[in-house]
Amino acid sequence: MSPTKDLSHMLREIREAPQASTRLQDLEGAKIRALGARLLRWNPPSVIIAARGSSDNAAVYGKYVLETRLGVPITLAAPSVVTLLKGRLRVRRAVAIGISQSGKSTDIVAFLAAARAHGALTIAVTNAARSPLARTAHETVITHAGDERSVAATKTYLNQAVALALLGAAWTGDERFGQEIASIPRLQQRVLACEAEIAHTAERYRYMHACIVAARGYDFATARELALKFMETCYVVALPLSSADLLHGPIALVDHDFPVFLIAPPGPTLGHLMDVASRLRARRAETVILSSEPQILRLSRVPIRIPGGAADAVAPPVYGVAIQLLAYYLSRIKGINPDRPRGLRKVTRTL
Amino acid sequence: MSPTKDLSHMLREIREAPQASTRLQDLEGAKIRALGARLLRWNPPSVIIAARGSSDNAAVYGKYVLETRLGVPITLAAPSVVTLLKGRLRVRRAVAIGISQSGKSTDIVAFLAAARAHGALTIAVTNAARSPLARTAHETVITHAGDERSVAATKTYLNQAVALALLGAAWTGDERFGQEIASIPRLQQRVLACEAEIAHTAERYRYMHACIVAARGYDFATARELALKFMETCYVVALPLSSADLLHGPIALVDHDFPVFLIAPPGPTLGHLMDVASRLRARRAETVILSSEPQILRLSRVPIRIPGGAADAVAPPVYGVAIQLLAYYLSRIKGINPDRPRGLRKVTRTL
Repeated sequence: MSPTKDLSHMLREIREAPQASTRLQDLEGAKIRALGARLLRWNPPSVIIAARGSSDNAAVYGKYVLETRLGVPITLAAPSVVTLLKGRLRVRRAVAIGISQSGKSTDIVAFLAAARAHGALTIAVTNAARSPLARTAHETVITHAGDERSVAATKTYLNQAVALALLGAAWTGDERFGQEIASIPRLQQRVLACEAEIAHTAERYRYMHACIVAARGYDFATARELALKFMETCYVVALPLSSADLLHGPIALVDHDFPVFLIAPPGPTLGHLMDVASRLRARRAETVILSSEPQILRLSRVPIRIPGGAADAVAPPVYGVAIQLLAYYLSRIKGINPDRPRGLRKVTRTL
Repeated sequence: MSPTKDLSHMLREIREAPQASTRLQDLEGAKIRALGARLLRWNPPSVIIAARGSSDNAAVYGKYVLETRLGVPITLAAPSVVTLLKGRLRVRRAVAIGISQSGKSTDIVAFLAAARAHGALTIAVTNAARSPLARTAHETVITHAGDERSVAATKTYLNQAVALALLGAAWTGDERFGQEIASIPRLQQRVLACEAEIAHTAERYRYMHACIVAARGYDFATARELALKFMETCYVVALPLSSADLLHGPIALVDHDFPVFLIAPPGPTLGHLMDVASRLRARRAETVILSSEPQILRLSRVPIRIPGGAADAVAPPVYGVAIQLLAYYLSRIKGINPDRPRGLRKVTRTL
């Protein structure tokens, strides 16, 4: 498919990623640095992150960012422990982070309110400064992505990831990481320049009905987000897996021509991913590899070349642009309106 | 399909579940009670559980058991933070639990060793008393499932769940929960009595290639385990979802006849699951509901009746028998040898 000139919200908002992430750093950077200093003094024994949908995928990235730098356990909350199972919550001096684009996810608001009542320092990460989530938390990080009209989250997801990265860098005084984050808008722009190639590649998957999406480390978040986008906007049954978990069972279903998408930025996980790619190749799978690294792209059946320069710790908001473009074009090629996935609304309420 | 008289390891080992869980309670009960007393005195700020594959699904159950009773955050570890990303680990006074049937999963052993070196109280849950994992930990809980020859875990998974339940009951002095756990072998026996009906139901899914498996709360573990079994032994792309997350995106791919398996024991999540079942019915999905409760079974296209009496907190090792039988018979019906899934071995090593 050729790059489209249509005015779908989804494509327009994907293309806004570099401006949105620049705006976030410009408008919220100072506040996040101050918050980082407060968190350093607070020195919590653990961090809990609560989110749903795409926000939960940003939370997975946040878990890796914080866990590798802080060393304290980072829990992805099961909100139903509080909302349905009425469990106790012993979170005194913990830090609890709630992530919701709209700030209206009822179970995330309920979780953060309970955490605050039990002595946690609470932080809302949201695109809506006047939302219930923002009002519930001690501190807010506004993602400044601008109005998002696409039902499938695009720039708000990317900016949630950038916000969590900024928070991690500020909290741990990781200046090198801070510099890498500053390069995100430029790297996102370079990925947008690959739009035509990604649109062309998408055509091959017109009749794909199921697939696996795998990665390891930071980009497990990207694998989960691509799988969610494939489901929401392309109606493809897409199974997100840690590439380590893939070897613990699910690889059994991979045979000749089964499509497996691997997110493979450079970094310490690349050797493992090359091993996985070789095993998939031996099974004659349809391996689609998103990477800047020629040595792993050579192991793919279909390479999707991503411009180099993204350190693994900031790969998710950069590779995130590529997977959004891929899902967008596949949706169009399948004759689906990606702005109106059946059965979904912009705000989902669950308890 | 009629119940088979074949001697497949998988079926034989599923049928051993009641004896295996009785043996665990008989042989390990006293040690677990003593460990519970030690944990109560230890009073950790957080608990970290590390596992892969089916053991990781038992870990999900353990997270709900401990989080609802202790209130402290329970983290499911990302072993790669330690093994590949070389992150620091600040886990002093935390409790770290490693779960591995064989006790040989290299990344789980590495994670537990690192946690021990950094001041955590470490516990191995394993079926192999003389394994590397057992040697690495301060304390061991042996699952006493007996030798397991099926590549797809059956009785060892169920006994991991029972062991975590016993640990939770001992740790929190939850006597009512302890009584519920004591009833597990009897309830498992009653599920085994449904074998013929489950075998018959499986036939309908001979040509199923993809599905969703959903649940909420404790039985999210069961949903994940059914999905893994469908992948390992039936080569079906099975997507496990919290039924809350199902509404945040993936429901878009559910249309007329798409199969969705719901695990729906009685308890506080049933109202939510009935709401989900109604929404699936409105979309004309093929909803298969495993439950003892007539009011939700009525909303299914295909009911799988589970004998009543299992409180929601002990439902996973009980409903776990039903989902293993379902996967076993579907594997046979599809002409697959469930004892030899392609590409898998009994012990998987990843770093």
